[in-house]
Amino acid sequence: MNKIKQVAVIGKGGEINEELKKIAKELGEKLVENNCRIICGGRDGIMKEVCKGAKKAKKYREGMTVGILPTTKKETANEYVDIVIPTGMSYARNQIIVLSADVVVGIGGGAGTLSEIAMAWQYGKKIILIEKSGGWSEKIAKEEKIDEKEREKIIRVKEVEEAIEIIRKI
Amino acid sequence: MNKIKQVAVIGKGGEINEELKKIAKELGEKLVENNCRIICGGRDGIMKEVCKGAKKAKKYREGMTVGILPTTKKETANEYVDIVIPTGMSYARNQIIVLSADVVVGIGGGAGTLSEIAMAWQYGKKIILIEKSGGWSEKIAKEEKIDEKEREKIIRVKEVEEAIEIIRKI
Amino acid sequence: MNKIKQVAVIGKGGEINEELKKIAKELGEKLVENNCRIICGGRDGIMKEVCKGAKKAKKYREGMTVGILPTTKKETANEYVDIVIPTGMSYARNQIIVLSADVVVGIGGGAGTLSEIAMAWQYGKKIILIEKSGGWSEKIAKEEKIDEKEREKIIRVKEVEEAIEIIRKI
Amino acid sequence: MNKIKQVAVIGKGGEINEELKKIAKELGEKLVENNCRIICGGRDGIMKEVCKGAKKAKKYREGMTVGILPTTKKETANEYVDIVIPTGMSYARNQIIVLSADVVVGIGGGAGTLSEIAMAWQYGKKIILIEKSGGWSEKIAKEEKIDEKEREKIIRVKEVEEAIEIIRKI
Repeated sequence: MNKIKQVAVIGKGGEINEELKKIAKELGEKLVENNCRIICGGRDGIMKEVCKGAKKAKKYREGMTVGILPTTKKETANEYVDIVIPTGMSYARNQIIVLSADVVVGIGGGAGTLSEIAMAWQYGKKIILIEKSGGWSEKIAKEEKIDEKEREKIIRVKEVEEAIEIIRKI
Repeated sequence: MNKIKQVAVIGKGGEINEELKKIAKELGEKLVENNCRIICGGRDGIMKEVCKGAKKAKKYREGMTVGILPTTKKETANEYVDIVIPTGMSYARNQIIVLSADVVVGIGGGAGTLSEIAMAWQYGKKIILIEKSGGWSEKIAKEEKIDEKEREKIIRVKEVEEAIEIIRKI
Repeated sequence: MNKIKQVAVIGKGGEINEELKKIAKELGEKLVENNCRIICGGRDGIMKEVCKGAKKAKKYREGMTVGILPTTKKETANEYVDIVIPTGMSYARNQIIVLSADVVVGIGGGAGTLSEIAMAWQYGKKIILIEKSGGWSEKIAKEEKIDEKEREKIIRVKEVEEAIEIIRKI
Repeated sequence: MNKIKQVAVIGKGGEINEELKKIAKELGEKLVENNCRIICGGRDGIMKEVCKGAKKAKKYREGMTVGILPTTKKETANEYVDIVIPTGMSYARNQIIVLSADVVVGIGGGAGTLSEIAMAWQYGKKIILIEKSGGWSEKIAKEEKIDEKEREKIIRVKEVEEAIEIIRKI
C-alpha cells in the first residue's frame, strides 16, 4: 500500500511561544514535503501552526491538513485546515486523532497532549516526541514508556528533522 | 470562502443491488466533477460504491474520499477511501459523518441511514434524498420533514443529476 | 442473574402536552413498581416526566433514575435524575442510552427519538413502542420493523400497562 | 442539594497486586459508608476491587456501583457493578467517567489512568491521588499540577482514610 501516511501532530492549543510556533511550522512543512497528511485537533496553538507550515511546502496540495474538532461546528476550525471533521464529542475527539494516525508526533503540550500521548500508547501507535519542545512531550520522552505494556518504546528526538527521518522509513 | 464542499453520502452497508451500486457510483463521480469531497462511513455497500465512483471522475485527485469508521482500525476501510478516520465509537460515528457535511445526500438505506437522516435533521443540515433509491431515503423524502422543528424541509430528488444541480448552487 | 432490569425510556425533549406527560409519568411509576431502573437522556420533556413518575412509585428508592446527558455538565440534568452521567458527546449520547437498555420503550417522539429507535434496532435491542403516544413511536410501531435485518420485530402496544406486562416477562 | 456524591475511581485494569487490591477495596467500602456512589470503568483490576469493597459496606444498598464500559455489551462488566452503562466508544469512555465525577480518586495506574487524570484536569474536576499506590497516581501527585491552567491543585494523600476525610468535606 503506497497510501499517503497520516501523521497526527499533537500539542498545546491556545497561546504558544515563538519557539514552539517555529517547531510546529517546520514540522508541518517537512511532513508535507515528505508526502504525509497532517491530522490534528483543528484549533489554535500548535494545531494552527502545523497546518500553516504545511501550506508552505512546495509539495502542498489541497487536502493535506485535517482538523478533528471537539465542537459541532465547522466554523471553529482554524483557517489552515482543509478537511474539517467536527465531532461534537469534546475532548473525546482526542481518541479519533490518535486512531487516525500511522504515527503520532508530540510537540510540547499540557493536559490535552498528555491524554493524547497516553491514548496513543494504549492503542499501540508509534509515538515520536520532540524533546526540545518542552512540556509533556519532553517529560514523557525521557520516560520512554508509559506503563509495562509490551510495545515499541516512545521515540525521543531532538529536532524536527530527526522525526522526519524516522517517519520517512516507516 | 471557496473551500471544497464536504458532502456526506449515507446509505446501506453490506450487500446492495446493481441499481443502488449504479446510483452510488454516479453520485460519487459527479460530486467530484463538481469539486465536492465525499464524506462517508468508509465501509462497504453504498459507502464503497460512492468512493469507487469518485475515482472515475476526471477531476479526481487524491484526498477526495474520507471514510469515518466505527472501528479502531484503519484496515477496516474500503480500498477506495483516501483519508481514513477510525473513531472506535461504533455507530456513534454517524454523528461525525453528519456534522462534517455541508450537505447530506441519502441513497436507499436501512436503520443506520435512518439514524443518520434523523441526526442530520437535528443538527440543521441540508438534506437531499434520492427518491428512486428506495429504503428510508424514499420514505423520509415523502414526509419532507421529520418533526415540527422549524428548518428547511428535506429536499426530495428523483435522480442523481437533480441532487448535483442543487449542490452546485449552495 | 436477578439484576434489576435497565429500561431505556426515549421520547421528545422540550415542551410536551398533558397527554404525553401522563403516559410518561405512568410509565415511570410502573417501571419502578416492577423493579426496573430507568435510563433516559436526563433532560426535559418525556425524560423529566418519566423520572418524576418514578419517584411516585411505592417501591422507589434512590438510584432508580439515570440520566445520560449530551452536555459536559451535571447541572443540566433534570431534578428527578438520581444518577447523572454527562457524556460531553452531544447526540452521540443516544447510543449509550440504547446500549444500556435491556429493553427500550418509546413514547411519541421527534428526530432524536427516531435516531434512538433506529440505533436500538441496529444493536438488536428489544423495542416496545406505545402506539397511542403518537410521533415516531406510532409511525414505526406500525411498520413493526426498520429494515431487513433478521431480528425480533418491534413490539407495538396500546397502553403503558401492556408494555409493563411484556417487560415483566423478560 | 443533598444528592449522593459521585466519586470516580480510576486505576489499572487487568492483573493487579495484593497491595493495590487492598487499597481499592478499602476505598470502595469507605466511600459507600460515607454515602458516595462509585463511578468506574466497570472492568477488572482496580475497577473490580473497588466495586467489591463497596459491597462490604454496612451502608451499601443496590445501585451504589456504576460501570461505564468501553464495549457495546453489558455482559463485559464485572460482577460487582450494579448499574451497567456500555458506551461502545472504546477508551473515549474515559471522558464520561471523569465528567460524571464530583471528585476523581486515582489509585496506581498505567496509560489509561494517566489519560483519565489528564482529562479530569482539563475538565476542572477535583482530583485526589493516593501516593502510596504507585504508578501514575504517585508520579502525578508529586507534580501537583499538570499544566499552567489556573485551577485547584491535585490533592496528594498518603492513605485511603485521608482521601475520605477530604471527600466528606466537599
